[in-house]
Amino acid sequence: MLVGFGRVRRALAGLLLERGARVAERYALDLRLRRVLTSRGVFDLPTGEDYYARLRALVEHGATFTPGAVGPVEAGGVLAGEVPVGQGTVEELLVGQVLVDATPTDLASGQPGLAYLRAALAAGMHGVALSKGPLVVGWEGLQELAARQGTRLMVSGATAAALPAGDTLVHSLAGAEVLSIEGVLNGTTNYILDRMGQGLPYGEALAEAQARGIAEPDPRLDVEGWDTAAKMVILANLAWAAPGRGTREGAVRAGAPSGRAATLGEARVAGITSLSPEQLAESRRRGRVVRLVGRALPPEGGRPPRIEVGPVELAEDHPLARLTGANKGVTFVTDLMGSVTVTGGESSPRAAAAAALKDIIHLYA
Amino acid sequence: MLVGFGRVRRALAGLLLERGARVAERYALDLRLRRVLTSRGVFDLPTGEDYYARLRALVEHGATFTPGAVGPVEAGGVLAGEVPVGQGTVEELLVGQVLVDATPTDLASGQPGLAYLRAALAAGMHGVALSKGPLVVGWEGLQELAARQGTRLMVSGATAAALPAGDTLVHSLAGAEVLSIEGVLNGTTNYILDRMGQGLPYGEALAEAQARGIAEPDPRLDVEGWDTAAKMVILANLAWAAPGRGTREGAVRAGAPSGRAATLGEARVAGITSLSPEQLAESRRRGRVVRLVGRALPPEGGRPPRIEVGPVELAEDHPLARLTGANKGVTFVTDLMGSVTVTGGESSPRAAAAAALKDIIHLYA
Repeated sequence: MLVGFGRVRRALAGLLLERGARVAERYALDLRLRRVLTSRGVFDLPTGEDYYARLRALVEHGATFTPGAVGPVEAGGVLAGEVPVGQGTVEELLVGQVLVDATPTDLASGQPGLAYLRAALAAGMHGVALSKGPLVVGWEGLQELAARQGTRLMVSGATAAALPAGDTLVHSLAGAEVLSIEGVLNGTTNYILDRMGQGLPYGEALAEAQARGIAEPDPRLDVEGWDTAAKMVILANLAWAAPGRGTREGAVRAGAPSGRAATLGEARVAGITSLSPEQLAESRRRGRVVRLVGRALPPEGGRPPRIEVGPVELAEDHPLARLTGANKGVTFVTDLMGSVTVTGGESSPRAAAAAALKDIIHLYA
Repeated sequence: MLVGFGRVRRALAGLLLERGARVAERYALDLRLRRVLTSRGVFDLPTGEDYYARLRALVEHGATFTPGAVGPVEAGGVLAGEVPVGQGTVEELLVGQVLVDATPTDLASGQPGLAYLRAALAAGMHGVALSKGPLVVGWEGLQELAARQGTRLMVSGATAAALPAGDTLVHSLAGAEVLSIEGVLNGTTNYILDRMGQGLPYGEALAEAQARGIAEPDPRLDVEGWDTAAKMVILANLAWAAPGRGTREGAVRAGAPSGRAATLGEARVAGITSLSPEQLAESRRRGRVVRLVGRALPPEGGRPPRIEVGPVELAEDHPLARLTGANKGVTFVTDLMGSVTVTGGESSPRAAAAAALKDIIHLYA
């Protein structure tokens, strides 16, 4: 089932329609969307022959949500793990084997996604997170629930849409120790820094980015570094506080959180709002490029991973220095495999949905 | 068990010694090396308490191979699927659940690794290939065997040591269609091209690379493009002729090879031997960088994937243009996730062994 309100939800329904047959053939996996849950209510899909017709109608015409027996579900109700009186609980809304959380990100509360993911994992469902909030706020509790239930929490769409940052870390570097993580993970700041390097003051560069739909109307999460910090918290926890990964000092057992998960509150975060075009031009003259960089180091001495976000001058041959526009990238330094960098990956609702589809495939195939 | 002759085999034994306990704790996986098979004979490890002591002796002092009941196994004997008279067959030498092939690469015959991988898969063991030869020569047959037996053939160490090219393609891009692959996958030619760009003639640059141990005494596989072509054949087959992946025109079912696997014979391959320092300097003046690039396009119209290798001028902002020295990289263009590039990954026997260790972990965890 799919919880969420926006474009990513529609894109994922579209992918399931368009790719369903191919996924079935290639991965021997018959994925069926059972239910879509939004603030407007509940939309159920049939399990029988008319499944694809109804899915097509949902994708092409949008849902006619049924505010009947269970809905509408208000965010306020979900926060407390409840829906309005007489409407049943979050638990009663769960169907299927996988819950995909595509709710808006709230880095302070993690809600409403956190309540849904908790309920789903507790009920023995797998969780696929597209929203950063629940992971940043509730990492250890969610991992503990998943381990206890023998289910999995997949997060590859929550760090940078289609950039396979989490997959590279967890899958491609399996068996090696991650010694540090460095990421350029925010397209909005890339754009603004590029324009400032061309002489535009911060305010004008931001206004231009907003006019082009690159920056949000409220750009604070991006330009003050919190979007990058949230992604780094998730990557740090995948590296050092997740089942199947460990720390320098010893392994973290599945289901036995270390108490050393990274949190946003302990990250040192600076944004790009106080930079001047002169500073950027000066860096350029010295053959260097300024990017908003997130860095993470492993937990040590009982402390959580160290996370720092801020503008950094990168040498021109640094593997992340070339990232412009929406392009993102992350470098993992390891003990056995050297340094591995992954860059690119489209940033769009469809690409984020593709990351969720991939996570669902990996749950089974 | 581990078949092979050289440094990678010793590095893998070393990793199993050094990381055994950590892998057991982190992945709940007790990996035990049962047998090492080389041209000199057979070395068996005990399954009981003295396993780690014997493994340590093997790593630190090398094996005292037992040319007794079964060995020595000559490559000539293995080629025919047999060992010398009175010594038993390849099949009789198999033990354990996984065969790791770390034999030298022979791109023409695929032997001796091909005989071992075939026998192991046919016997229901998993195969982990570190050598390109068996995959380039025998891809379809090996995949067919694995599918029939319900076992798996893992190849992440065969394309570029610790650069996770295959993992990115198969795992990180799961669910998306790969539209093209572009790789700079040969460190020797990177080095020679860099030096030629600084004015050295080809012959001198090659001699310098050989003196530094970067180029082989017989450099033809590298400088004539065949090493790159072999890696591209493997990546193309992972993308378009492997279980779990498909083609533009439809999925390839596990166990039903398409007859459209890429082969080295059909690749168009050019090397760097006829380039002049003047050409490279001229490219440089135009702000471009020459690299030995492999390109692969999907199968179309019943034909296998198209593979081309040759020197290519890359724009300076091309994600692969910055790769110098031993650094390798590969770009996958996909339909759902945009373009994803992975670069780096140490090139060393230890890094190749780490890729094999990762493959073994993924067989079980």
